Amino acid sequence: MPQQTIGFIGLGNMGRPMAANLQAAGFALRVYNRTRDKARELEQKGATVVDNPRDVAESGGIVVSIVADDRALEAIATDELAKALGPGGLHLSMSTVLPTTSAKLAERHAKFGATFLAAPVFGRPEAAEARKLWICVSGPADAKERAESVFDALGQGVFDFGDGVGAANVVKLAGNFLLTAAIEGMAEASALAEKNGIPREKFLGMMIQTLFNCPIYQNYGKRVIAADWDKVGFPARLALKDMRLAQQTAAESRAPMPVLDLLVGRYVSALAKGRDESDASVLAQGAADDAGLKW
Amino acid sequence: MPQQTIGFIGLGNMGRPMAANLQAAGFALRVYNRTRDKARELEQKGATVVDNPRDVAESGGIVVSIVADDRALEAIATDELAKALGPGGLHLSMSTVLPTTSAKLAERHAKFGATFLAAPVFGRPEAAEARKLWICVSGPADAKERAESVFDALGQGVFDFGDGVGAANVVKLAGNFLLTAAIEGMAEASALAEKNGIPREKFLGMMIQTLFNCPIYQNYGKRVIAADWDKVGFPARLALKDMRLAQQTAAESRAPMPVLDLLVGRYVSALAKGRDESDASVLAQGAADDAGLKW
Amino acid sequence: MPQQTIGFIGLGNMGRPMAANLQAAGFALRVYNRTRDKARELEQKGATVVDNPRDVAESGGIVVSIVADDRALEAIATDELAKALGPGGLHLSMSTVLPTTSAKLAERHAKFGATFLAAPVFGRPEAAEARKLWICVSGPADAKERAESVFDALGQGVFDFGDGVGAANVVKLAGNFLLTAAIEGMAEASALAEKNGIPREKFLGMMIQTLFNCPIYQNYGKRVIAADWDKVGFPARLALKDMRLAQQTAAESRAPMPVLDLLVGRYVSALAKGRDESDASVLAQGAADDAGLKW
Amino acid sequence: MPQQTIGFIGLGNMGRPMAANLQAAGFALRVYNRTRDKARELEQKGATVVDNPRDVAESGGIVVSIVADDRALEAIATDELAKALGPGGLHLSMSTVLPTTSAKLAERHAKFGATFLAAPVFGRPEAAEARKLWICVSGPADAKERAESVFDALGQGVFDFGDGVGAANVVKLAGNFLLTAAIEGMAEASALAEKNGIPREKFLGMMIQTLFNCPIYQNYGKRVIAADWDKVGFPARLALKDMRLAQQTAAESRAPMPVLDLLVGRYVSALAKGRDESDASVLAQGAADDAGLKW
Repeated sequence: MPQQTIGFIGLGNMGRPMAANLQAAGFALRVYNRTRDKARELEQKGATVVDNPRDVAESGGIVVSIVADDRALEAIATDELAKALGPGGLHLSMSTVLPTTSAKLAERHAKFGATFLAAPVFGRPEAAEARKLWICVSGPADAKERAESVFDALGQGVFDFGDGVGAANVVKLAGNFLLTAAIEGMAEASALAEKNGIPREKFLGMMIQTLFNCPIYQNYGKRVIAADWDKVGFPARLALKDMRLAQQTAAESRAPMPVLDLLVGRYVSALAKGRDESDASVLAQGAADDAGLKW
Repeated sequence: MPQQTIGFIGLGNMGRPMAANLQAAGFALRVYNRTRDKARELEQKGATVVDNPRDVAESGGIVVSIVADDRALEAIATDELAKALGPGGLHLSMSTVLPTTSAKLAERHAKFGATFLAAPVFGRPEAAEARKLWICVSGPADAKERAESVFDALGQGVFDFGDGVGAANVVKLAGNFLLTAAIEGMAEASALAEKNGIPREKFLGMMIQTLFNCPIYQNYGKRVIAADWDKVGFPARLALKDMRLAQQTAAESRAPMPVLDLLVGRYVSALAKGRDESDASVLAQGAADDAGLKW
Repeated sequence: MPQQTIGFIGLGNMGRPMAANLQAAGFALRVYNRTRDKARELEQKGATVVDNPRDVAESGGIVVSIVADDRALEAIATDELAKALGPGGLHLSMSTVLPTTSAKLAERHAKFGATFLAAPVFGRPEAAEARKLWICVSGPADAKERAESVFDALGQGVFDFGDGVGAANVVKLAGNFLLTAAIEGMAEASALAEKNGIPREKFLGMMIQTLFNCPIYQNYGKRVIAADWDKVGFPARLALKDMRLAQQTAAESRAPMPVLDLLVGRYVSALAKGRDESDASVLAQGAADDAGLKW
Repeated sequence: MPQQTIGFIGLGNMGRPMAANLQAAGFALRVYNRTRDKARELEQKGATVVDNPRDVAESGGIVVSIVADDRALEAIATDELAKALGPGGLHLSMSTVLPTTSAKLAERHAKFGATFLAAPVFGRPEAAEARKLWICVSGPADAKERAESVFDALGQGVFDFGDGVGAANVVKLAGNFLLTAAIEGMAEASALAEKNGIPREKFLGMMIQTLFNCPIYQNYGKRVIAADWDKVGFPARLALKDMRLAQQTAAESRAPMPVLDLLVGRYVSALAKGRDESDASVLAQGAADDAGLKW
């Protein structure tokens, strides 16, 4: 069987290991990134690097994209790209964006006979590297079926949320909310413990060994204990963006979410205090500040 | 070796299986409960039933108590009980109460040479029955050491929070907050999902299999999915009590906890709507109400 | 002196009485409204009615606009309008919109030598009719000076917020927040009173005669007492829009506003419950719902 | 007519000018204060000073008390005092306390045939001095009638909230909430203004001249502008106490009050930052801190 070529757009902290995994799984790659030097390693392993996002596409082929935000996605998922994909083409959009952005772009692709499929992922760069991402997908059944081999190369499991074009995006936003809420919970509880003389490593240490012995609490619990916001997995500035996308989706779909509002407020305050580039878990520092604690 | 006798006060949903486990572990029991008929089964297995809480104690012996709230604890942990325990006596207080209540009662016991040790537990009645409780303890080292064989008969692990008399109570309140916050998070995220056409069983189903595959999220996630608040493990009215104890402790120790405030508000609203005796997870219904969803 | 002609766009509940006041003050009007029949009365008193917003403008002249939202404003404040105004032309923008929208439109006008001046107003339609509006303005000094005679015909006072193009818009959003927060305060306090057996008309009755004897509390206090949300001054749906503009501005300028977040949540819930077209004061019903009160 | 004697307990910032006004109105006074030297001036004008609160009472007479909190009130409103008042005696309780405290003390007084009437007041010390207090009262009609001449000497108006013994206390707590919420509103709106380059004196300056031209907004608006928390009218520590009384009453009467919860959180944070003795308006500093503003 001739090797299948996939177009790949976006070589950030997530995109790079994902592209490498596709390559390792036997796909040929045509890649685009705004700053070309991030493509060096892939190129050495045989990828073709192009200078314009539309050039990653071939008629009837598959394109995978994972970029920073809605604006970046709209900038690459142009009429030109859709046209280059053409009838039978498939765009797997793995960025964290608004469901309404997916709806708009799905329409744009449909104009040229191509399919735009929302397939955002859960997992940090380490998980991307280890093929341990969780993939959420929604959209036309045949497109989801065709994407399977790509998903297999990227993650440890796929969850299908039906045929609503933006449904998978909502799940991604709701999931990000849930994990950020867990950090806030740990931060408040830790502040309570410390104001009563109990070190947070003892309190959280117990919690993440017992009732909350799952990845999110363990990973973020350790970060809250260390209070080392300088080791950045995902910057606070982008976490604010994600929380605001969730807030916008909540308002538009008429779902009041008071804890989400609080999380947005925490990030707005973090940025007001100059913590834009700290790790997203710096959220926890807000509870400490309010309690007069130095973490 | 002659069989050791333990005084046991409080045969509620938690106390009954705990007392039975002590009996099964070879301890003789002298038990007290406000309504005597709950002691029947223990009595048939050899326990002595008494009519006054102070009569469970013997000089220099051990008493275990687990009752509904601070008021109930103060009502049984009287001067008479402390006097009956006397020098070398040990009271293991396993109720969820204020740290300040423990401090006050520790002083009361000390007047008569006895020790009051806070040792609250995490776990629902099923966990109590299965000896799967997690026990938090704080106080004098020798008392904690002496309590070990009792704890062994009741739980799967003990966490020591130092010698502060109320520290273990703070941990229990902070932990209860953390798990209630998890329910609120799941409720808000589920409301967002459903307002966007995604059934909450699909959304939460993914979450509790992946990022949140730990007991709290799985148990409560299933309850939120079922929305069956009539199957009561722990009533909303007592959950409000616990959250208010946490809120009071937070205010007095100067730790602002906005998510906790929200949880108290949710329970106050639940009771305003007549849900006093629903399961504590009815909290989740508040987010659904606000979003105009029928769960 | 020859009569000055003013272009006027937007004949909604606010725009109609404002246009009439300009006419009464001796200005000739050239008016545009999406639905032409709202211009009938003005036409009978001598106004010229045009079919395209750009046709209200004359080279170097003045245009006043007051429309529903940012999108409507962007739709009328086109390149064509700016070009028709041309060098020396002045657009007085009295709508409640984002400061960033004003900045964008100011730039658009500047391209053609015209000036765009943000001049949003406080006051309900009755105040507009009675020339009792309060006008906030910011922008170039000479434009503000030139606008004086127009403002005189419309309001009882002008407040100048300097030369920042969107500053007046921020003041309008902040002011709307402040008055909506006052309604929420009255609602919560009234719920507390009623749950303790004190009718809200007695509680609020005292407050608005004493500590809070000012228009906002008196007007909205009476509405909260009457709980007559069907008599609509300003619909909840537009109030949500205003609060979300404030929320967006707050997030972008890094100002956490927890009470504002709560107000947005109240309106989102009101709309989730089908109260889109109720009066904006229906916000208060949320506090009653949560407390299990029927208002 | 012989001069009527009134017992007076509590010569704090409020009590001193109130007692002086009673004296000026022709009442003879028998006064008690924990620190006797605060009674000096009243003594010079003819008051009798006693060393025990119960000694201010005479059989069938009137006692007025205004003390710092529930505990202080319970400490003076003893069985001994009630007995000294005896049948026909009347205790006018003007402190800010829980309605349940009033209920308990009313019962205590009734045991001895005396009446305990809740009559808390709105107004700062300057208002007390100027006889400009607003008085809330609830309880038995004959007692309220008998109190009229006393109220006349102290305030500018009396509002009657029926015969519920604690109703007036609820009104006082709800009113304090309402004015504190107004400060928070001004603080958040000011932070928004300043983060957008508009000085808060310009923004609030407009608001308190126009829509919010009432005493609360004007007085506290000026304080927020000055950000001079060191000029203390009422310390933050006592404001927290008041807000917590309101919060407790809200929880017990099943009225969720999210803005109130936020205010409690603001004061808890203020105290965590060492602002216990700052003026209550220091609440506003919390919004500034969160926004990274130096006020």
